[in-house]
Amino acid sequence: MKSHTKYLTFNTKNKKEIVNITSQVEQAVSESRVKEGFCLVNAMHITASVFINDEESGLKQDFLEWLEKLAPYDVENYRHNLTGEDNAHAHLKRTIMGREVIVSITGGKLDFGPWEQIFYGEFDGQRNKRVLIKVIGE
Amino acid sequence: MKSHTKYLTFNTKNKKEIVNITSQVEQAVSESRVKEGFCLVNAMHITASVFINDEESGLKQDFLEWLEKLAPYDVENYRHNLTGEDNAHAHLKRTIMGREVIVSITGGKLDFGPWEQIFYGEFDGQRNKRVLIKVIGE
Amino acid sequence: MKSHTKYLTFNTKNKKEIVNITSQVEQAVSESRVKEGFCLVNAMHITASVFINDEESGLKQDFLEWLEKLAPYDVENYRHNLTGEDNAHAHLKRTIMGREVIVSITGGKLDFGPWEQIFYGEFDGQRNKRVLIKVIGE
Repeated sequence: MKSHTKYLTFNTKNKKEIVNITSQVEQAVSESRVKEGFCLVNAMHITASVFINDEESGLKQDFLEWLEKLAPYDVENYRHNLTGEDNAHAHLKRTIMGREVIVSITGGKLDFGPWEQIFYGEFDGQRNKRVLIKVIGE
Repeated sequence: MKSHTKYLTFNTKNKKEIVNITSQVEQAVSESRVKEGFCLVNAMHITASVFINDEESGLKQDFLEWLEKLAPYDVENYRHNLTGEDNAHAHLKRTIMGREVIVSITGGKLDFGPWEQIFYGEFDGQRNKRVLIKVIGE
Repeated sequence: MKSHTKYLTFNTKNKKEIVNITSQVEQAVSESRVKEGFCLVNAMHITASVFINDEESGLKQDFLEWLEKLAPYDVENYRHNLTGEDNAHAHLKRTIMGREVIVSITGGKLDFGPWEQIFYGEFDGQRNKRVLIKVIGE
């Protein structure tokens, strides 16, 4: 069994941002020389997400507005913020969007449907945060 | 390490539908001859889900009604629909329900709790859409 | 390829409870002697979750209150409860929080970011329920 581990670092301009990371993941899969296996991509911080959806700018805006309704910033309203943080909302938003994805590798490539793209979702950015890519297979 | 890749195609009668796909996944695991490993099942389209829950018709209806509250159809309300689509809501619903599941294979079978069943969740159906099953292990 | 399968049983004091299970997962990884691979941790019951977030007591309370807003107990409001159950809400809460996590194993350890901890989320407790840990790799 082969394996390959890689870390990406993001420091987004905005507090909340959605970044397409598909090409970085494709590169890691290529480096791994795995032909059949799994590729795990996960946020290493608990106020950020990795998820799969569509590369369409309106939809990315829709996601951010929708998350603001389901898990508003609303500093006063969370016990977690009594610790001095203001990011309780970001822990909740990341929960909706998910921590990780697993993508099948088939014939040496990410085995994607027609529109699947991998995104990093940042909900408490403007500082260095990491994403892990792990490939296993043969 | 063994691996086995299989694709299922669904064309649901209704725009929104929840379909039990457990037996198709069991068949793929059996074909793989993997005794110990992982089985990935994921929607290949970004307006559909794969998830694990209970086979109970009332609950499936509850899921659809609940999703309609959290992510209403509401065509006018999403930027994504300015592209000519009307399915922004389906991208959001799929996010709540999840893209994929990983099930352990133990002794050649899906290692399930007493009520676990695998479902395909369609939120923009009435056209061909695919699900990927990938088994790896030994 | 090595593999290791382990089951944990939980019987929480409260109906809803969030339990840190990181050390039990670390032990299973250690037992597996896997140096590079994946660790799957999943709830085996469909009214419970396994998820990764932060060990902070205020945040755990925030999660439970937030879930109560998104998926209220509200017995009368769900078709599933016509079967005699009162736990439809718990199926929905578990869906938000997720069934499973996959963690990379690197150098024989869970490859975690600085704050990542693994939690069992119980939404219909006070009875025995199981979690599966499966490690594969080399």
